[in-house]
Amino acid sequence: MTTNSATTEIKTPYTVNLSTGDPEAKREEIRRYFHETYDAYEALFEPFLDKVAYTTRADALRHPLIFYYGHTATFFMNKLVLAKLVDRINPGFESIFAIGVDEMSWDDLNEAHYAWPDPDEVREYRAQVRECIDQLISKLPIKLPIGWESPFWPIMMGIEHERIHLETSSVLIRQLPTSLLDGEHPAWQPSDSDTTPQTNEIIAVPGKSVALGKSLEDAYYGWDNEYGTYSKEITDFGASKYLVSNDEFLAFVQDGGYSNRDFWTEEGWNWVSYEKATCPRFWLPQPDGSYKFRTMLKEIDMPWSWPVETNYLEAKAFCNWKAAKTGQPVRLPTEEEWYRLLDYTEVPDAPAWKKAPGNLNLEGPASSVPVDTHPFKHGFYDVVGNVWQHTETPIRGYDGFEIHPLYDDFSTPTFDTKHNMIKGGSWISTGNELMRDSRYAFRRHFYQHAGFRYVISDAPVEIPDDSWETDPEVIPYCEFNYGKEYFDVDNYPEKLAQICLDIASDRKREKALVLGCKTGRAAFELAAGYKNVTGIDFSARMIRIGVQLKEKGYTQYTLPEEGEISSFHQVKLQNLGLDGTRDRVEFMQGDLSNLKEIYQGYDLILLDTLLERSYDPQKFLESASKRLNEGGLLVIASTYDWQEKVTSRDHWLGGIKVNGENVTGKDRIEELLSKEFKKLGTSRDLEYVLRRTARTFDHNIADLTVWEKR
Amino acid sequence: MTTNSATTEIKTPYTVNLSTGDPEAKREEIRRYFHETYDAYEALFEPFLDKVAYTTRADALRHPLIFYYGHTATFFMNKLVLAKLVDRINPGFESIFAIGVDEMSWDDLNEAHYAWPDPDEVREYRAQVRECIDQLISKLPIKLPIGWESPFWPIMMGIEHERIHLETSSVLIRQLPTSLLDGEHPAWQPSDSDTTPQTNEIIAVPGKSVALGKSLEDAYYGWDNEYGTYSKEITDFGASKYLVSNDEFLAFVQDGGYSNRDFWTEEGWNWVSYEKATCPRFWLPQPDGSYKFRTMLKEIDMPWSWPVETNYLEAKAFCNWKAAKTGQPVRLPTEEEWYRLLDYTEVPDAPAWKKAPGNLNLEGPASSVPVDTHPFKHGFYDVVGNVWQHTETPIRGYDGFEIHPLYDDFSTPTFDTKHNMIKGGSWISTGNELMRDSRYAFRRHFYQHAGFRYVISDAPVEIPDDSWETDPEVIPYCEFNYGKEYFDVDNYPEKLAQICLDIASDRKREKALVLGCKTGRAAFELAAGYKNVTGIDFSARMIRIGVQLKEKGYTQYTLPEEGEISSFHQVKLQNLGLDGTRDRVEFMQGDLSNLKEIYQGYDLILLDTLLERSYDPQKFLESASKRLNEGGLLVIASTYDWQEKVTSRDHWLGGIKVNGENVTGKDRIEELLSKEFKKLGTSRDLEYVLRRTARTFDHNIADLTVWEKR
Repeated sequence: MTTNSATTEIKTPYTVNLSTGDPEAKREEIRRYFHETYDAYEALFEPFLDKVAYTTRADALRHPLIFYYGHTATFFMNKLVLAKLVDRINPGFESIFAIGVDEMSWDDLNEAHYAWPDPDEVREYRAQVRECIDQLISKLPIKLPIGWESPFWPIMMGIEHERIHLETSSVLIRQLPTSLLDGEHPAWQPSDSDTTPQTNEIIAVPGKSVALGKSLEDAYYGWDNEYGTYSKEITDFGASKYLVSNDEFLAFVQDGGYSNRDFWTEEGWNWVSYEKATCPRFWLPQPDGSYKFRTMLKEIDMPWSWPVETNYLEAKAFCNWKAAKTGQPVRLPTEEEWYRLLDYTEVPDAPAWKKAPGNLNLEGPASSVPVDTHPFKHGFYDVVGNVWQHTETPIRGYDGFEIHPLYDDFSTPTFDTKHNMIKGGSWISTGNELMRDSRYAFRRHFYQHAGFRYVISDAPVEIPDDSWETDPEVIPYCEFNYGKEYFDVDNYPEKLAQICLDIASDRKREKALVLGCKTGRAAFELAAGYKNVTGIDFSARMIRIGVQLKEKGYTQYTLPEEGEISSFHQVKLQNLGLDGTRDRVEFMQGDLSNLKEIYQGYDLILLDTLLERSYDPQKFLESASKRLNEGGLLVIASTYDWQEKVTSRDHWLGGIKVNGENVTGKDRIEELLSKEFKKLGTSRDLEYVLRRTARTFDHNIADLTVWEKR
Repeated sequence: MTTNSATTEIKTPYTVNLSTGDPEAKREEIRRYFHETYDAYEALFEPFLDKVAYTTRADALRHPLIFYYGHTATFFMNKLVLAKLVDRINPGFESIFAIGVDEMSWDDLNEAHYAWPDPDEVREYRAQVRECIDQLISKLPIKLPIGWESPFWPIMMGIEHERIHLETSSVLIRQLPTSLLDGEHPAWQPSDSDTTPQTNEIIAVPGKSVALGKSLEDAYYGWDNEYGTYSKEITDFGASKYLVSNDEFLAFVQDGGYSNRDFWTEEGWNWVSYEKATCPRFWLPQPDGSYKFRTMLKEIDMPWSWPVETNYLEAKAFCNWKAAKTGQPVRLPTEEEWYRLLDYTEVPDAPAWKKAPGNLNLEGPASSVPVDTHPFKHGFYDVVGNVWQHTETPIRGYDGFEIHPLYDDFSTPTFDTKHNMIKGGSWISTGNELMRDSRYAFRRHFYQHAGFRYVISDAPVEIPDDSWETDPEVIPYCEFNYGKEYFDVDNYPEKLAQICLDIASDRKREKALVLGCKTGRAAFELAAGYKNVTGIDFSARMIRIGVQLKEKGYTQYTLPEEGEISSFHQVKLQNLGLDGTRDRVEFMQGDLSNLKEIYQGYDLILLDTLLERSYDPQKFLESASKRLNEGGLLVIASTYDWQEKVTSRDHWLGGIKVNGENVTGKDRIEELLSKEFKKLGTSRDLEYVLRRTARTFDHNIADLTVWEKR
């Protein structure tokens, strides 16, 4: 099972259709796919001439290759242990090879903390894991379709994970000293083709809608970020015929591109300054001012006709330079524009290929090829393949995004607007990476076998701030307003709004004001009856959620489950039946104790558990009447939970002794309002639950009173 | 209605029987009692020669008399407003005359904050209040018996309150300069009797049980502290035949009693030093070394045969001096010993009197009389009357103590072990003060018309620390363990213990350990099945409650309702069916993360929501097995709510990523225990509710797992 003999050909079948076919035949197909993946990955390490190649750091911010050698096997084990399908083989290895791929907070890249084992031991471990998984594939019950719940899903997860590392490890190997590598290994030879560089040109792409995201019923393995729905109308744009070649990029370098701050984003300039970069990483400046070029295993003469490989920051600087030179709106495509080009050029999806339509899937050489090698429709080249293509779009989840419980941090830590998507695949992209639906993103300064195509478009790039709300003050109120009900307590803001709507059913219902609107649910609910609803909260962090819902119809947030473990939640107004009236709602920041005079002329003011969270609650009550229309309603919900850290004792409405007698907030409110208001009906209790963790909650009882302006 | 003409006789009927009689006749009886009380109080102020007498401070720590003049009327109004029976007459007066009687935190005695009105205005206000109450007495529906809920109760409350101030204001007047007073006012003339001082002697009082406290069905008005039950076995003691006379006290003074620290308690010595006292307050040292004496209105020759009047601290110093001189265990009586003497001398209760059995009820002169004037059975004098008698006993509530909602701070602020009881009444004690059941207490340095009788007894004085638990960390756990159920959630520790008892029903049940016992309920519950239960908590503040319950069978605590307003609660093991086994339970302070080795040999260890509140929870789990007997059970309840402020992140059992994978506390506990334990059954959820205020709660769900030692 070891792979000591030199591989000459990597077998790269397309990823498995998990939906149809004979189950036992499917079992064998998965077994074959597993072994061929495992073989391919081990073939990556065959060119290592010396054990020191394993422990040499190719990149200062990444583990040495020995980590990645063990990692793909350990990943299988860790997921299968989590799925309670296997027992550990080597707990020590399964700890040190577990984490350290991205620059996550939990990545420990201090090499002093690691005593890397001998590569032979790791090879032996890999063999044990291979055997273990092979046996597991034999014995697991199989049933089609294989979905998220199937025990075969973590096996597919391990395989596709290893295929990702097949590519990313090849990038790291490309950064090892050539002296440690057998440059002539037959399986990893670069192309020897270098054509005359072509002048790039812009080809028009007509606008159209693109629909993205796949369903859980899809027949192929997918990472969590691929599921859900998203569609966008794309306006006409122009796209470069070719990927940008080394030759085309040279003009930017020679024009002082790397030393002119104007062309760089702030993040880009920080990177250039830190790295002291003067050209793309795989260009090797020579003493005579010329360049050589680094492939995976060796240095070659500069292939000017091959696509340039840069990180996002360099690609973006090139576009800015080009825009400055041409006066044209040059930029990188968005994710959606890239898909539009894919649709426009009618590229079929991988499983339908007889042969890859571009330089992909290791079907060609172990390197790029000239940018004019692979033509697509309408005159384009390399719509997919050769090198990945940077986009302007940070990765985020589509509507309906859910997390697979066995890999809850595959995507969400990258939903931070700091990880931009790359599309289209490279010569070494295989498996899931070839699928139309696949979505990968890296930090903008990371290198992959990635270059770019530029577009000309006036359409602004919208970078949706589509990260997950994690503000610990805000997220309990997201769940409280839009999430699950706990302890059989009805959704509080919904019920509160319903009570208001019922009471006001035969009254004028033009304008309503919600004071203490939190994340907005009551305001949206009131819009069913009122033409104009303003929600006000003191905290911009709270109303941000309401604004998001109004503008986008959805919001998403994390909830702490236990300690650092969180779950991810998305809510949509549509699912709550609140989508139709969201244009009637607005959210403003405001201070109850110092509320602007403009907030007047209401038919309803709902004051929701805010008096007890204001520094001078009496002030509002004194102005309440003049803010209401004739016969307008003031609805007050309060727990009367006065706290000194919020309201100084001399401003408490109740819970105090006045002239030696106990005064409750309820009494005091009645006293303050009785001149200008008539109390309607009796007060009532309304429970609400704030979730803190999976097992801890606040459970309160608001007192609800209704007042009619005299 | 004003009382400008000099009163010559104060009418002092006994307090009203509220239980029997014709309702309309009762209405008139109350009206008469009201007016006679109001008259008597106003008569107090008749001797004032000048308005300045109203605004002169008689005592640096008390308001001037003008406050007390207005206060008794305002008290009526404030209670009747609170009871929603009347509207305010003069909100300004009803604010400034409301508070400032004791030295409470809410008393504002800074005179700069007061602009006292003219006494004539106050007199006019008093007349308005009198008229208002008279009308109220006419119109209120009346029904016998008149109990706590009756609208006549606040009227009786106001009357008896004014009768208290009749006495306490007379003490303040006694401290005004005589130049401001008409010393010859006919209603307030002192006795002119002064007999030859008698030598005091000790008379034996045989021990017996005393039963104290009255029921809510009692026919007479009572303050909250009088209700409930309490009984105590009194051992034989000796009591002085007479109250200590001025003559007897003189020996102490002449022996340097006021300058010898040895005789004084620390509190007493602080008082002597601060006041620079050299003799009792109403003794007036003359330049020739003799003394004159101050009565309510004037100075007279020293009546050596009258009872000495001191505060508690001086009385106590005298006893200590006498004990030092005689080698006898001389001290003041306890409350119970005073009652024993009352019972032994068969003193009937006030309503049965034809004439007061001592110098009481203003039936004699407006002063004390010689201590040999009023004989009682068995040779005693002044068992009641003449002056109040200091006791060793700080006031507290009896079992079943409840607070009347219209006067929730009559007693509880004095249940602080700093207010000692005085018993027996003085020449100016009237109304409720004459009743056997009445209980009054003052700060130990306060002066009243009070002296003392000493006793000889070896019985130690037990000062029950009978204050109300107010520790904000502890009181939610008092209610949680012993109080009401909220949101229909069963009592958690009771249910938890029941589950343990059920699981262990056919096992050895000798020794059980509760870790995280809080205020002890689960430990008491487990004692139903285990012979020996140890409850351990990290917090001595928590286990103090358990210890109290074990030792006394009851505990009492306040609960925040809203802001500063609290309610008062008493719980008894007996009412929970837990009284019979409390000797099987012990409570210890201990640290789960560093638990002593001696805690071994258990058949059950219940680990209740403590792992998540320990700084190193793993440590205990590693030792759990060796602490259990063969087949012993470990029951773990946890919310897995790891918090950094309690447990540093590297000691969290779960809620963390280990090698990049989520690990839950539940998983980790299973991993740690699986070698030495077998898990029994499946885990289950157990809800619990912690009350924070009347409307705010924590509502959590513990996960319960049961482990059997292999």
